[in-house]
Amino acid sequence: MTWTAEVVVQLKPVVNDPQGLVVRDGLRRLGFDGVHGVRVGKHIEIEVDAASEAVCRDAVASMCEKLLRNPVIEDARIIGVRANAEAAT
Amino acid sequence: MTWTAEVVVQLKPVVNDPQGLVVRDGLRRLGFDGVHGVRVGKHIEIEVDAASEAVCRDAVASMCEKLLRNPVIEDARIIGVRANAEAAT
Repeated sequence: MTWTAEVVVQLKPVVNDPQGLVVRDGLRRLGFDGVHGVRVGKHIEIEVDAASEAVCRDAVASMCEKLLRNPVIEDARIIGVRANAEAAT
Repeated sequence: MTWTAEVVVQLKPVVNDPQGLVVRDGLRRLGFDGVHGVRVGKHIEIEVDAASEAVCRDAVASMCEKLLRNPVIEDARIIGVRANAEAAT
Protein backbone atom coordinates (compact mmCIF):
# COMPACT_ATOMS: atom_id res chain seq x y z
CA MET A 1 0.00 0.00 0.00
CA THR A 2 1.20 3.50 -0.80
CA TRP A 3 1.01 6.45 1.58
CA THR A 4 1.71 10.12 1.28
CA ALA A 5 3.32 11.64 4.36
CA GLU A 6 3.75 15.36 4.92
CA VAL A 7 6.66 16.55 7.01
CA VAL A 8 7.45 20.06 8.18
CA VAL A 9 11.07 20.90 8.98
CA GLN A 10 11.42 24.18 10.87
CA LEU A 11 14.25 26.05 12.47
CA LYS A 12 14.16 25.70 16.25
CA PRO A 13 12.59 28.74 17.96
CA VAL A 14 15.95 29.87 19.37
CA VAL A 15 17.59 29.90 15.94
CA ASN A 16 17.69 33.14 13.99
CA ASP A 17 15.72 33.04 10.71
CA PRO A 18 16.97 35.72 8.30
CA GLN A 19 14.73 34.48 5.48
CA GLY A 20 11.70 34.90 7.74
CA LEU A 21 12.78 38.44 8.65
CA VAL A 22 13.05 39.37 4.97
CA VAL A 23 9.57 37.98 4.25
CA ARG A 24 8.18 39.83 7.29
CA ASP A 25 9.68 43.12 6.11
CA GLY A 26 8.42 42.51 2.58
CA LEU A 27 4.88 41.91 3.82
CA ARG A 28 4.99 45.08 5.95
CA ARG A 29 6.25 47.08 2.98
CA LEU A 30 3.25 45.81 0.99
CA GLY A 31 0.93 47.25 3.64
CA PHE A 32 0.37 44.23 5.90
CA ASP A 33 1.16 46.20 9.06
CA GLY A 34 -0.25 43.59 11.44
CA VAL A 35 2.48 41.06 10.68
CA HIS A 36 4.59 40.44 13.80
CA GLY A 37 6.80 37.62 12.69
CA VAL A 38 7.42 35.08 9.96
CA ARG A 39 9.30 31.79 10.12
CA VAL A 40 10.17 29.98 6.92
CA GLY A 41 10.65 26.22 6.92
CA LYS A 42 10.46 23.27 4.56
CA HIS A 43 7.46 21.18 3.64
CA ILE A 44 8.36 17.73 2.34
CA GLU A 45 5.81 15.37 0.82
CA ILE A 46 6.96 11.75 0.64
CA GLU A 47 5.20 8.97 -1.25
CA VAL A 48 6.19 5.68 0.31
CA ASP A 49 5.22 1.99 0.38
CA ALA A 50 4.29 0.67 3.83
CA ALA A 51 2.13 -2.10 5.27
CA SER A 52 0.21 0.23 7.59
CA GLU A 53 0.00 3.84 8.68
CA ALA A 54 2.04 3.08 11.81
CA VAL A 55 4.84 1.51 9.74
CA CYS A 56 4.76 4.51 7.42
CA ARG A 57 5.04 6.96 10.33
CA ASP A 58 7.97 5.02 11.78
CA ALA A 59 9.76 4.99 8.42
CA VAL A 60 9.21 8.72 7.88
CA ALA A 61 10.36 9.56 11.43
CA SER A 62 13.53 7.60 10.70
CA MET A 63 13.99 9.49 7.38
CA CYS A 64 13.76 12.76 9.33
CA GLU A 65 16.53 11.70 11.69
CA LYS A 66 18.79 10.29 8.98
CA LEU A 67 18.44 12.87 6.22
CA LEU A 68 15.68 15.45 6.32
CA ARG A 69 16.51 17.54 9.35
CA ASN A 70 19.67 18.99 10.80
CA PRO A 71 19.21 18.04 14.47
CA VAL A 72 21.41 20.90 15.66
CA ILE A 73 19.15 23.65 14.39
CA GLU A 74 15.92 22.08 13.11
CA ASP A 75 12.83 20.32 14.38
CA ALA A 76 10.77 17.97 12.20
CA ARG A 77 7.16 16.93 12.63
CA ILE A 78 4.85 14.74 10.61
CA ILE A 79 1.73 16.79 9.97
CA GLY A 80 -0.25 14.21 8.04
CA VAL A 81 -0.31 10.73 6.53
CA ARG A 82 -2.91 9.69 4.00
CA ALA A 83 -3.46 6.49 2.05
CA ASN A 84 -3.22 6.87 -1.71
CA ALA A 85 -5.99 5.51 -3.88
CA GLU A 86 -4.91 2.17 -5.32
CA ALA A 87 -4.54 2.07 -9.08
CA ALA A 88 -7.32 0.04 -10.68
CA THR A 89 -6.05 -3.37 -11.82
CA MET B 1 -5.99 39.53 18.69
CA THR B 2 -2.98 37.67 17.33
CA TRP B 3 -3.15 34.60 15.13
CA THR B 4 -0.60 32.21 13.77
CA ALA B 5 -1.30 31.04 10.24
CA GLU B 6 0.54 28.20 8.53
CA VAL B 7 0.90 28.31 4.77
CA VAL B 8 2.35 25.66 2.47
CA VAL B 9 3.73 26.78 -0.88
CA GLN B 10 4.35 23.89 -3.25
CA LEU B 11 5.41 23.54 -6.85
CA LYS B 12 2.45 22.68 -9.06
CA PRO B 13 2.26 18.96 -9.87
CA VAL B 14 3.27 19.54 -13.51
CA VAL B 15 6.45 21.42 -12.53
CA ASN B 16 9.70 19.48 -12.27
CA ASP B 17 11.16 19.39 -8.75
CA PRO B 18 14.92 18.66 -8.89
CA GLN B 19 15.31 19.19 -5.15
CA GLY B 20 12.67 16.53 -4.50
CA LEU B 21 14.43 14.11 -6.87
CA VAL B 22 17.70 14.58 -4.99
CA VAL B 23 16.01 13.94 -1.64
CA ARG B 24 14.27 10.86 -3.08
CA ASP B 25 17.56 9.44 -4.34
CA GLY B 26 19.26 10.23 -1.04
CA LEU B 27 16.56 8.38 0.90
CA ARG B 28 16.83 5.37 -1.42
CA ARG B 29 20.59 5.31 -1.02
CA LEU B 30 20.07 5.22 2.75
CA GLY B 31 17.99 2.05 2.36
CA PHE B 32 14.46 3.47 2.17
CA ASP B 33 13.61 1.47 -0.97
CA GLY B 34 9.87 2.06 -0.72
CA VAL B 35 10.13 5.78 -1.48
CA HIS B 36 8.43 6.56 -4.80
CA GLY B 37 8.57 10.30 -4.90
CA VAL B 38 9.40 13.39 -2.88
CA ARG B 39 8.24 16.98 -3.41
CA VAL B 40 9.89 19.78 -1.49
CA GLY B 41 8.00 22.98 -0.77
CA LYS B 42 7.99 25.85 1.69
CA HIS B 43 6.24 26.07 5.02
CA ILE B 44 5.64 29.63 6.17
CA GLU B 45 4.37 30.51 9.64
CA ILE B 46 2.95 34.02 9.94
CA GLU B 47 2.06 35.77 13.18
CA VAL B 48 -0.49 38.45 12.41
CA ASP B 49 -3.01 40.76 14.11
CA ALA B 50 -6.61 40.30 12.98
CA ALA B 51 -10.09 40.86 14.41
CA SER B 52 -11.26 37.33 13.66
CA GLU B 53 -10.13 34.07 12.10
CA ALA B 54 -11.95 34.91 8.85
CA VAL B 55 -10.18 38.27 8.59
CA CYS B 56 -6.87 36.54 9.28
CA ARG B 57 -7.50 33.96 6.53
CA ASP B 58 -8.40 36.70 4.05
CA ALA B 59 -5.25 38.66 4.88
CA VAL B 60 -3.01 35.60 4.58
CA ALA B 61 -4.63 34.57 1.27
CA SER B 62 -3.88 38.06 0.00
CA MET B 63 -0.24 37.78 1.23
CA CYS B 64 0.09 34.53 -0.73
CA GLU B 65 -1.06 36.23 -3.93
CA LYS B 66 1.05 39.37 -3.45
CA LEU B 67 4.32 37.94 -2.19
CA LEU B 68 4.55 34.36 -0.98
CA ARG B 69 3.87 32.33 -4.08
CA ASN B 70 4.94 32.54 -7.69
CA PRO B 71 1.59 32.01 -9.44
CA VAL B 72 3.24 30.63 -12.56
CA ILE B 73 4.75 27.57 -10.91
CA GLU B 74 3.46 27.40 -7.34
CA ASP B 75 0.27 26.70 -5.41
CA ALA B 76 -0.33 28.00 -1.89
CA ARG B 77 -2.72 26.69 0.73
CA ILE B 78 -3.43 27.69 4.30
CA ILE B 79 -3.14 24.53 6.38
CA GLY B 80 -4.02 26.02 9.75
CA VAL B 81 -4.87 29.14 11.73
CA ARG B 82 -4.70 29.21 15.50
CA ALA B 83 -5.30 31.95 18.04
CA ASN B 84 -2.28 32.87 20.14
CA ALA B 85 -2.63 33.02 23.89
CA GLU B 86 -2.97 36.66 24.96
CA ALA B 87 -0.15 38.01 27.07
CA ALA B 88 -1.23 38.55 30.68
CA THR B 89 -1.75 42.23 31.41
